[in-house]
Amino acid sequence: MYALAKELFPICRSLTGNGVRETLNIINSRLDRLELNINEVPTGTKVFDWTVPKEWNIKGGYIETLDGKKIVDFKQTNLHIMGYSTPVDAIISREELLQHIYSMPDQPEWIPYVTSYYKERWGFCMSEKQKLSLHEDKYHVVIDSTLEPGSLTYADLIIKGESDEEILFSTYVCHPSMANNELSGPVVQTQLINHIAAVSHRRYTYRFVFIPETIGSITYLSRNYEYLKKHVIAGFVLSCVGDDRAYSFVHSKYANTLTDKVLINILKYHAGSFADYSFLERGSDERQYNASGIDLPVCSVCRTKYGKYPEYHTSADDMSLISPAGLQGSFDMLVKVCNALEYNRNYKINCKCEPQLGKRGLYPTISMKGSYDVVKIMVDFLAYADGKNDLIDISNIINQPVDQIIDILPKLMSNNLISY
Amino acid sequence: MYALAKELFPICRSLTGNGVRETLNIINSRLDRLELNINEVPTGTKVFDWTVPKEWNIKGGYIETLDGKKIVDFKQTNLHIMGYSTPVDAIISREELLQHIYSMPDQPEWIPYVTSYYKERWGFCMSEKQKLSLHEDKYHVVIDSTLEPGSLTYADLIIKGESDEEILFSTYVCHPSMANNELSGPVVQTQLINHIAAVSHRRYTYRFVFIPETIGSITYLSRNYEYLKKHVIAGFVLSCVGDDRAYSFVHSKYANTLTDKVLINILKYHAGSFADYSFLERGSDERQYNASGIDLPVCSVCRTKYGKYPEYHTSADDMSLISPAGLQGSFDMLVKVCNALEYNRNYKINCKCEPQLGKRGLYPTISMKGSYDVVKIMVDFLAYADGKNDLIDISNIINQPVDQIIDILPKLMSNNLISY
Amino acid sequence: MYALAKELFPICRSLTGNGVRETLNIINSRLDRLELNINEVPTGTKVFDWTVPKEWNIKGGYIETLDGKKIVDFKQTNLHIMGYSTPVDAIISREELLQHIYSMPDQPEWIPYVTSYYKERWGFCMSEKQKLSLHEDKYHVVIDSTLEPGSLTYADLIIKGESDEEILFSTYVCHPSMANNELSGPVVQTQLINHIAAVSHRRYTYRFVFIPETIGSITYLSRNYEYLKKHVIAGFVLSCVGDDRAYSFVHSKYANTLTDKVLINILKYHAGSFADYSFLERGSDERQYNASGIDLPVCSVCRTKYGKYPEYHTSADDMSLISPAGLQGSFDMLVKVCNALEYNRNYKINCKCEPQLGKRGLYPTISMKGSYDVVKIMVDFLAYADGKNDLIDISNIINQPVDQIIDILPKLMSNNLISY
Repeated sequence: MYALAKELFPICRSLTGNGVRETLNIINSRLDRLELNINEVPTGTKVFDWTVPKEWNIKGGYIETLDGKKIVDFKQTNLHIMGYSTPVDAIISREELLQHIYSMPDQPEWIPYVTSYYKERWGFCMSEKQKLSLHEDKYHVVIDSTLEPGSLTYADLIIKGESDEEILFSTYVCHPSMANNELSGPVVQTQLINHIAAVSHRRYTYRFVFIPETIGSITYLSRNYEYLKKHVIAGFVLSCVGDDRAYSFVHSKYANTLTDKVLINILKYHAGSFADYSFLERGSDERQYNASGIDLPVCSVCRTKYGKYPEYHTSADDMSLISPAGLQGSFDMLVKVCNALEYNRNYKINCKCEPQLGKRGLYPTISMKGSYDVVKIMVDFLAYADGKNDLIDISNIINQPVDQIIDILPKLMSNNLISY
Repeated sequence: MYALAKELFPICRSLTGNGVRETLNIINSRLDRLELNINEVPTGTKVFDWTVPKEWNIKGGYIETLDGKKIVDFKQTNLHIMGYSTPVDAIISREELLQHIYSMPDQPEWIPYVTSYYKERWGFCMSEKQKLSLHEDKYHVVIDSTLEPGSLTYADLIIKGESDEEILFSTYVCHPSMANNELSGPVVQTQLINHIAAVSHRRYTYRFVFIPETIGSITYLSRNYEYLKKHVIAGFVLSCVGDDRAYSFVHSKYANTLTDKVLINILKYHAGSFADYSFLERGSDERQYNASGIDLPVCSVCRTKYGKYPEYHTSADDMSLISPAGLQGSFDMLVKVCNALEYNRNYKINCKCEPQLGKRGLYPTISMKGSYDVVKIMVDFLAYADGKNDLIDISNIINQPVDQIIDILPKLMSNNLISY
Repeated sequence: MYALAKELFPICRSLTGNGVRETLNIINSRLDRLELNINEVPTGTKVFDWTVPKEWNIKGGYIETLDGKKIVDFKQTNLHIMGYSTPVDAIISREELLQHIYSMPDQPEWIPYVTSYYKERWGFCMSEKQKLSLHEDKYHVVIDSTLEPGSLTYADLIIKGESDEEILFSTYVCHPSMANNELSGPVVQTQLINHIAAVSHRRYTYRFVFIPETIGSITYLSRNYEYLKKHVIAGFVLSCVGDDRAYSFVHSKYANTLTDKVLINILKYHAGSFADYSFLERGSDERQYNASGIDLPVCSVCRTKYGKYPEYHTSADDMSLISPAGLQGSFDMLVKVCNALEYNRNYKINCKCEPQLGKRGLYPTISMKGSYDVVKIMVDFLAYADGKNDLIDISNIINQPVDQIIDILPKLMSNNLISY
């Protein structure tokens, strides 16, 4: 996963344009015998309350002194050019230039990530330090970009299961050279596709979506929401899943869906401690998936949440911020989440009163102080396997990880002690 | 409000009698182009489990020594005569007199407020200090009162709104010369009538009730409860709303009505901190409005709650205990409560996914770290404006004062983004 | 109760056998004009997932050195022989003997209580200290027991009330010489039978069950569960109710039954502090009564809970561990529980608004600061006697012991103020 992120890092992604296409093609090349379904939606297409914007592409851009000394250059990092900047090639005064420069006085060493998707303007981003070093009277500014009718590019991939009910994963591919936000989501999701495809039996169908943020999810939902509302039982937006500092997630709108429930349960045991944020602290595509009239059971999953780490939306969100261990922790957690959902049923014991586990070799034959403990999970599971609770409920009631309960299910099924 | 309280202060009010009538007439004179509907209910009328008592009137009363030195006199303060005292004019021994004297050993400087509504007897109230100074063998006691068939007097006033649904305010006019308990309630309610009448558009109908406590509310309910049960959506008993020490309210019987909900919300932002008392700590007419079979959504609203301040039911509850600022704080809070109720609807967003606020000039056009904050209330309101929550629910969910949400409603309505 | 426990103490009880019969006969002799209904269920009878085991009887047993010195002897305490030991009479090596010895290294002075009901084997129990003193090469071991087809013995007793609805008490009679666990349960239950039988009027029918643990309750339920499910409104397993160190109970499966509710209420006032354990800490017959498909509203009631005191399941659980005061505290508490249930109805006030208590002599005729307190329980009860709450609910709402509310019910009923 880390290697893929490194390969994708230099590409200049935005809401639209060739950076998105190149990113999706590279991801495609990493999939085992599967192919992304890539879609192009023309500029001007109405998507709910929004309209697909013009397509933006950029070849380069820089500020230089009149004697040709480059101050900032797109070649160094694509963050130097404000996203969706219109083209420019002019010699302008220092005063005018400053009105087109974005920097962060409180983080003076880092370049901010700035965009202007819905109003046409141009701009440069640089560190506060660089900005303060601009002392010439005039500068030559060049942005070699195009902003023209074209299309918005997105991809999805569906892996069929026994049921039409779906588990949704969604991440975004519109951010330029930042690592945690947002290459971590696409690379973990790519790995997850390969993992799910390799599983021998799937109860649920899995849907993986790669879109530009906001306009992409709105576009995707405008085309698919009726089907999704009928079929999605749990959904996860992957964002900022690459650092190794924390685990967290953003609750769905009312914090009452299966997605919230499975995340709380799995994170409790997988992460030890974790932060769960109210929907009031949302900020990624969970906004659209949970919007009124859409109301899908979707949470955003993060390591350190977007906006909660100092490097967020700056040049410091680079490859040093994420790590193989950070990505792997997210991946492992999501595999556990899928596993819990796959086994999540309302199991019901087949007999009245406690079953006689001893005659099936499932219980110690000597009763002595303390000996009861060894089969505690089994008897506790059976006590609450009354058809009223699903697997996650029981895990919560008996305070045992879902994984450990899943481990005993085969014994109980083969002894005909439970059914569903 | 303070001036009106000062004018009403000397009048000797009780459950019945001319003091109540005089009080209501003065209040009437303060209303702008509106008139109280004044009712007389004859002595002996059955009202639920109770009977309207005889009417009590008093001209004067005193204790004097045999050589004509006045010990206490009704002219000094009407609190000196126990409420509903039967007439007496006799020379009696010190021992006999002491059986008719009420004082408070633990608050030796103050005169207590004492009544005997439902058993005929006479008595004098004085400070413990005065009582201890009674050293003569005999005294002349005079109470020039009448206790005869007559009627109980109450008033109400209804200001029509668009809907027949009502917001109820009720206060009592049966207490003699005490300021916070209870002239603060009548004067704040008088001001509120003028305010509500002056509002250009009212969604709800407003009902204002002035009654003697307990027997008055029982009488009022026995005549109106069927209509009230059908129409009252929220009701407020105003009592002890004139001091400036605290805000508080007494919950309805199960603390689960719209009235409880709006008070908690408004007081949180208006008062900063406030006390909410269980219905177990009730003590005013919320007792009757919440009684079994009546079950109206009524809370009592107070600054410092009755019974919770040392001057309660004593001569120290005088005009120095209340203040213009104390009365104004209550009035302002109640205006906010009415406003919140007027705008309290289940708003619903008109589009799917988030609307594009930017194209309507409601969202910044540059996306940069931090810039999201400025429209946070609007997007949070829209997220929960899904038809499931009323305005107060949303205020509670998004932790923003109702007032601030009300401020943005016109923008959202005029942009056709929400409806109800 | 303590004397009866002392008499029963030496008897060797087990799942089956003459010890159980003898115990039930002695209990029978203590009942006033009532008789236990004693049942025998043949070995091999299918009871749900289980089978009634062979009957076990024992005359004696010992380990002796080859020169005839007794090491441990059943005559000293029946705990020395593992429950359900098969017969043996052999000279064996020290090594072989050690494989048949059970002791507790962490409690080296005490003999453990050990059984092997469902696998045929033999064994001796002794203190770790005794075990460490075994230095001979060979020993003579004798267990004079029989394990043969016979029957399982249990008893019940039903005391009819006005209604067929039942309150269930269940305790077990399968433990050998241990006092708190479990002679306290049978002796308190015996006393309770005599108490309930002596009450002049019973609203509910009372069922008292004496069974061996687990297999006994399964057997009992397999024969009676359909009737019990229809009629039992609250049930109590009595176990470890004889010490004087604490009060506690084990919640029903979902902690949401009338039994849980009445226990929390009564223990709060009777015990001051008490421990309520989750069903996850269950361990006695509440396991079967709450099992899926049975789902009876049953909690286990204890002083110090089984498994939570160091002497549990050892020879130190002897007559010094329990006390007359400990037994009496349990008995008194259970009497209060029964009383609360007998009076537990949805009372409803007969009038609208508050009733006029004064005219019925139930309210002070002078109103003065503080005088309201004396009738506070009555008015608070009446406020919530609206038909929505039962007696225990109201006790919880108004924070007053059920007993004190029961005391005022006759006044309210005779004044026709409430009905049910």
